Amino acid sequence: MTGAEPEILSRSEKRIPGGTQLLSKQSGQFSRRLWPSHFKKAAGSRVWDYNGRMLLDMSLGGIGANVLGYADPDVNNAVKQAIDDGVSSTLNCLEELELADMLIDLHSWADQVRFTRSGGEAMAVAVRIARAASGKEKIAFCGYHGWHDWYLAANLENDNLDEHLLPGLIPLGIPKGLAGTAIPFRYNDLESLERIVSKSGKELGAIVLEPTRSCEPAPGFLERVREISQVNGIPLIFDEISAGFRISKGGSHLKFRVQPDIAVFAKALGNGFPIAAVIGVGDVMESATRTFISSTNWTERTGPAAAIATIRKFLKNNVHEHLIYLGERVQNGWKCISENTGIKIAISGIPPLSHYSFKDAKNSRQMKQFVVEKMLEHNILASNSFYPMYSHTDEDIDFYLEHLHEVFSELSTHIAEDKLDKLASLEGASSGIRKFT
Amino acid sequence: MTGAEPEILSRSEKRIPGGTQLLSKQSGQFSRRLWPSHFKKAAGSRVWDYNGRMLLDMSLGGIGANVLGYADPDVNNAVKQAIDDGVSSTLNCLEELELADMLIDLHSWADQVRFTRSGGEAMAVAVRIARAASGKEKIAFCGYHGWHDWYLAANLENDNLDEHLLPGLIPLGIPKGLAGTAIPFRYNDLESLERIVSKSGKELGAIVLEPTRSCEPAPGFLERVREISQVNGIPLIFDEISAGFRISKGGSHLKFRVQPDIAVFAKALGNGFPIAAVIGVGDVMESATRTFISSTNWTERTGPAAAIATIRKFLKNNVHEHLIYLGERVQNGWKCISENTGIKIAISGIPPLSHYSFKDAKNSRQMKQFVVEKMLEHNILASNSFYPMYSHTDEDIDFYLEHLHEVFSELSTHIAEDKLDKLASLEGASSGIRKFT
Repeated sequence: MTGAEPEILSRSEKRIPGGTQLLSKQSGQFSRRLWPSHFKKAAGSRVWDYNGRMLLDMSLGGIGANVLGYADPDVNNAVKQAIDDGVSSTLNCLEELELADMLIDLHSWADQVRFTRSGGEAMAVAVRIARAASGKEKIAFCGYHGWHDWYLAANLENDNLDEHLLPGLIPLGIPKGLAGTAIPFRYNDLESLERIVSKSGKELGAIVLEPTRSCEPAPGFLERVREISQVNGIPLIFDEISAGFRISKGGSHLKFRVQPDIAVFAKALGNGFPIAAVIGVGDVMESATRTFISSTNWTERTGPAAAIATIRKFLKNNVHEHLIYLGERVQNGWKCISENTGIKIAISGIPPLSHYSFKDAKNSRQMKQFVVEKMLEHNILASNSFYPMYSHTDEDIDFYLEHLHEVFSELSTHIAEDKLDKLASLEGASSGIRKFT
Repeated sequence: MTGAEPEILSRSEKRIPGGTQLLSKQSGQFSRRLWPSHFKKAAGSRVWDYNGRMLLDMSLGGIGANVLGYADPDVNNAVKQAIDDGVSSTLNCLEELELADMLIDLHSWADQVRFTRSGGEAMAVAVRIARAASGKEKIAFCGYHGWHDWYLAANLENDNLDEHLLPGLIPLGIPKGLAGTAIPFRYNDLESLERIVSKSGKELGAIVLEPTRSCEPAPGFLERVREISQVNGIPLIFDEISAGFRISKGGSHLKFRVQPDIAVFAKALGNGFPIAAVIGVGDVMESATRTFISSTNWTERTGPAAAIATIRKFLKNNVHEHLIYLGERVQNGWKCISENTGIKIAISGIPPLSHYSFKDAKNSRQMKQFVVEKMLEHNILASNSFYPMYSHTDEDIDFYLEHLHEVFSELSTHIAEDKLDKLASLEGASSGIRKFT
């Protein structure tokens, strides 16, 4: 049976603080004893663990990076061609120009583009550019935007990030001089933003939010955010790292017809290859030439080559429509299973970033681990989120929902018999609070 | 003849602020009218520009990234295998464990490793970890360490970076609350560090420097820096992004037998593929689990796959010895050419990071541009720096030095006839001050 390989897990935790480069890839987030921490091979919607066992991945699709599916042949071939031609030299690669043009074609409000290789890094570039353009330094933000100082500074005075990132996060290593520079507001709560603007509007260098993620914007919400930022001369940054290319042919803001000053892409942009982009209006982006934003590894070729091939496939195949279709099928499936088994869940997220949580808050961690472990018995990687990939088929969804129904039924029986405590040993499980690297 | 393609240059400057992701890849740094801004193909020590013209690259070797040479077949094949196996999934890749073990084997003082994809980003991780471990936030630094806020903060009160990064840099977009957190000292000047420590020792969260770059450490310098940091409980960070793997089988500090608490690698580590590493002693690195340092794109596979293959080749072929040999040949060549032609230059840099500057400061920009443009007539990319690649042969060096001698002779004649002004039109040339993205 599939299980964590203790030797590999202990090696990774010995060598790498937290055992991984990404909190969401910690096996303790799922089941420390059974979720495989590492993989050998991935193709389509399948992953092979280090023991060579094949699993259907109905979970997080590379934590949102692999929108087309694993080892997509079109993207892979484009990158391999770039590698044969040399990924780097003393000169610049032409692919970044082509990618810049593609992004501007899709987002006609934007004029200029900068590239990085990681999403959090791209957000730090966007914030630097907005601060340089506005000459002001406070940031009003909503939601999760990475590991950088500008963002974690929000927790220097209060536990401001409890609702946005993780509860209980201590901002260790963040200079105290940044206290008060990052101020949170709530999604779909205009008053919470208006309060910040009325108090600190003249000091705000950016308003930062995801156009959508856990739910769609309330009517008029994004429009009013745009209006507030324009009236007060504050650059508006849309973080499209998670939602971008999932509900439209580009940033999710294209669907909502609200244009920011800067938008940031990563994850889906490279289908698993490291590439991120900051696009923006000329007036704001131009300030990048008046500060210093420069890195050698941002000039290599695999990133833009992957992104060009990925976007081409998005456009050609209307990928976002299939993602929405898959996500809706799974959300509907969750609803039916919950009703049939009597296990109450709350479903959230746009269909391509679907999520459910158990309403029984006291037992929710054990219930999640029970589902994860039982689904692994059926060779399915599944947690309480589903980020569809273009490679997922109706048969994959059928297979998943069928087994999930069985597992929920079992869970329901165990709950009725009050046996839950014995089902899922939480030994070593991580709540995501203590070890969040 | 080779020349800048005006259409491509203007497209890149229209779409990308500054025209590139890296200051050192701006064609205006060399010759705006003749240096090709973009390339189509690169292999070994050769680059093909967008017109398909082949050039011998005797300049910056991918700005220090391509230590083995362009499109190295061993590295490329390893990455292509990783791509075929899937570069990303919901699980972690095994290659990062293997790479972590290799780095620790080479640097036995270190215990743990974190990876990023860019060098400046890795320095920001190192500084975060050191600040979290020490609970203190001021940084004493020497030299260049990237674009991040922690570093550019040095210029909030004075032009502290004039000698370390670029003269005249305005720290636009850096929060003022960081003023006083980054304090510069001078390389090989212990007093300049001791002054900072005696004034602010109890507030210092890290001492940051390159073990070597423009010159070797004076006897006892690094040892004393290590002692100061230990006595005062300040984590010592060695930035090995430029010097690493060039003068030893690992960090340059291995040669000098001084061990830091953290060392940071990028550039050479991936031979042009995006990968960077932060290695450190367990006590300090462990603090990474008590703050938040996490990014999706740090988990992909091409970076560690490239680094493993690159390091294997470094070790197998004693690559650093060949780099030193090539650099010494070129530095000796420069010396002879200067003596033979009477054009006075100052040579600096460890052999694998060789540099010269014209002593005639008033005319140095024009002289540099003259050399760049004349060498391009011989199909050679060359400026006043030479970062050797393992792919460079004795024949490449002979060909380069022969033509450089001719060009210096011409230059000498022109100077004698006082015709320098007409030789190199500086139209559009960048001094690296106004446009430094």
